[in-house]
Amino acid sequence: MATRALAEWLVSQRFDDIPRDVRHEALRSIVNIVGCAVGGSTHPAVDIALRALGQFSGPPSAQALARRERVDPMLASLLNGISSHVYDYDDTTPGNYSHPSSPVASALFAYASANAVSGRDFVHAFILGFEAESRIGNAVYPAHYDAGWHITGTAGVFGAAVAIGRLIGLDTQQMIWALGLAATQAAGLREMFGSMGKALHPGRSAQNGYAAALLAREGFTAGEHGLEGPRGFAAVTASAYDLSKITTGLGDNWDLRVNTYKPFPCGIVNHPTIDGCIQLREEHRITPEQIAEVRLRVAPLVLDLCNQQNITKGLQGKFSVYHGAAVGLVRGKAGLQEYTDEAVNEPAIKRVREHATATGDQSVTEDQAYIEVALADGRKVTKFVEASLGNLKRPLSDRQLDAKFRDQGVLALPSTQVDEILGLCWKIEELGDVGELVRVSRPR
Amino acid sequence: MATRALAEWLVSQRFDDIPRDVRHEALRSIVNIVGCAVGGSTHPAVDIALRALGQFSGPPSAQALARRERVDPMLASLLNGISSHVYDYDDTTPGNYSHPSSPVASALFAYASANAVSGRDFVHAFILGFEAESRIGNAVYPAHYDAGWHITGTAGVFGAAVAIGRLIGLDTQQMIWALGLAATQAAGLREMFGSMGKALHPGRSAQNGYAAALLAREGFTAGEHGLEGPRGFAAVTASAYDLSKITTGLGDNWDLRVNTYKPFPCGIVNHPTIDGCIQLREEHRITPEQIAEVRLRVAPLVLDLCNQQNITKGLQGKFSVYHGAAVGLVRGKAGLQEYTDEAVNEPAIKRVREHATATGDQSVTEDQAYIEVALADGRKVTKFVEASLGNLKRPLSDRQLDAKFRDQGVLALPSTQVDEILGLCWKIEELGDVGELVRVSRPR
Repeated sequence: MATRALAEWLVSQRFDDIPRDVRHEALRSIVNIVGCAVGGSTHPAVDIALRALGQFSGPPSAQALARRERVDPMLASLLNGISSHVYDYDDTTPGNYSHPSSPVASALFAYASANAVSGRDFVHAFILGFEAESRIGNAVYPAHYDAGWHITGTAGVFGAAVAIGRLIGLDTQQMIWALGLAATQAAGLREMFGSMGKALHPGRSAQNGYAAALLAREGFTAGEHGLEGPRGFAAVTASAYDLSKITTGLGDNWDLRVNTYKPFPCGIVNHPTIDGCIQLREEHRITPEQIAEVRLRVAPLVLDLCNQQNITKGLQGKFSVYHGAAVGLVRGKAGLQEYTDEAVNEPAIKRVREHATATGDQSVTEDQAYIEVALADGRKVTKFVEASLGNLKRPLSDRQLDAKFRDQGVLALPSTQVDEILGLCWKIEELGDVGELVRVSRPR
Repeated sequence: MATRALAEWLVSQRFDDIPRDVRHEALRSIVNIVGCAVGGSTHPAVDIALRALGQFSGPPSAQALARRERVDPMLASLLNGISSHVYDYDDTTPGNYSHPSSPVASALFAYASANAVSGRDFVHAFILGFEAESRIGNAVYPAHYDAGWHITGTAGVFGAAVAIGRLIGLDTQQMIWALGLAATQAAGLREMFGSMGKALHPGRSAQNGYAAALLAREGFTAGEHGLEGPRGFAAVTASAYDLSKITTGLGDNWDLRVNTYKPFPCGIVNHPTIDGCIQLREEHRITPEQIAEVRLRVAPLVLDLCNQQNITKGLQGKFSVYHGAAVGLVRGKAGLQEYTDEAVNEPAIKRVREHATATGDQSVTEDQAYIEVALADGRKVTKFVEASLGNLKRPLSDRQLDAKFRDQGVLALPSTQVDEILGLCWKIEELGDVGELVRVSRPR
């Protein structure tokens, strides 16, 4: 009876019962996802979605993050979902490989831009949506993911349904229906990876979860065993699953505690190399001209996935460990601006990339890298990264999240406005109306 | 390369190449589904959906069939999908157990109510959408259905995408994306059977397929192998599948030719019994008072599924072979009005139902029934139904489809208006603007 047990827990929760560290991690997740949404707000996928579907927007009571257009909250949910996921730069729960914040926050910010919601209610709904979604993901992982489901989409719709369902005050029966209506709209194939279709997933999850909650409130009935039934979400989408992961330790263990934030917008297997190169540059004050050669020793998987060296496009850079090393050493950072066509073709970066070699080594984990840089004066400097920045052992600090936020934000908005939004994210719990944050993000 | 091959075929088709019998079957399917939509238009599920989601309707350029409200075409698609499927009275392709017309027609009538579409273009789009959807269903059936997917929803989204995609003139690349965006929105669990969630499936399929076509036209990209890719629709949702069924014989074999129409709005295993009882009543002019006892010999599955005898609700009647026999003998018909609470509690029907017995017999197929009626004067009359009305061997005649249409239509509209809509359905190919048909269906 996972569906009923989860629903009962969700409707009975009080904000004051949530541990402080979980609340702080919620703020960090919100900072991270809002930064992603602002940074992605000018991506062509957002414009295209608006061009195709904007004609169906209802009364324009809402707004997507960092977008000028007034739209209805359902469309705003879609746009938020696309913008916050389209650069593959959002958060990851390593236990189930989902990117949990996008579906939940996308629906919540859309709702809050059209309806008065206090910061406390907002954060509470976010935490509960995140928790439900992540636990449902845990229950079906890894069989579900291995089968080809994009778990960010399939589990995400539950997160959005729960978060909106909490805000609109669903009772247990209604929450059971909302979970059922979410289950029966769960979708998203990994076959879409590499296309805009991937970013459609959290967008549709946000919309469909939002709609599930509203339908349930009005009495649109659903099967009562959407999660655990013989034809329910778990049985249909996973060859093996463990429903106890949905309910065991509810209220004690919080999946927000194991959320991680990508420091670099590229394949995660490149992260230790980039991380080490940035450290080497800082420690030895290396300038680009000093670099003669770069030798990498990495997990064999890195060369399976990211062995492109002779490249000209920003998107190719995301799958090039050599490019990762080059921007780390030359620029000391690897943000969205290091993965543009311009960055890939910049002479200094190109030269270093082409003077890099990489060897696969079974003894190196995917979270590690050995880096050796031969300098022009004959010196060699080396770095062993034992655990890459951004993983659970070395989480991004709050200040590193700030830097990531700014790096993305300035793609779309002036830096003063970016700082203003960032400030509101950190103090979101104190806001009387979270709509203020969304309005402040509007291009002026 | 099923996705590309299908897309190429779809965009190159011409209406004049479609065989006459296929075009006529399309008319029959349209008559049947419009009747279902009109009959279901006053069901509470439609009102609830409108109450929950009507607030997000864009400019009201469209209308759902037989509904008064002006809404946007996306919402009209949803409402049409719910109304046309909610009584489980729509069509079935026996090869894959899907109810194919609802998702396709729901999107098309919504589109046509807001945009000028000629009858020929409409029928052509319907035929192509139906064909794509049914072939995709065939490719994954039965593993997909057995796993717990409601194929009406999962295959339906392709049908709607193709139909709308044809109307808006997608090219091959855009059609490939539309199919991909449909694949990645395919959803619907059989766990929802018995709740309103079931009727949500064709509604959402209609909307999401419609949106997929519009997104693709504007350049929203998708994976190019949405159907056949290793993480595409077939591999992810079916443990066994045959992609050749999507493309083999395209243009020669048409799945419309194997479409069937339910004569009675109840579990299909009751149909031979009802059919035989109606025949007995007609042949022997039996009046209710004459009936002393009814003895049925049916396939064992009938007793597994429909063995309820002591009932008080209309919905229970759908799962009672005894009630089916009673209404067939007492009223000589079994339309929606024979499955109301009133009908179930009507004394004459109740008496016959309670004087019926049923025996399971392995030698009787699910499409057959032996019926023996003992009359008050001591006579016995019998009937063996070898193939039930409505199946491919004994399809409903055009006139029987008319009767079914009227029986449903008068639940929502005056009979003169019902006849007017019915007339337009049969001559839909000649209409300059199919929107006329939708407007005529509006309650006055």
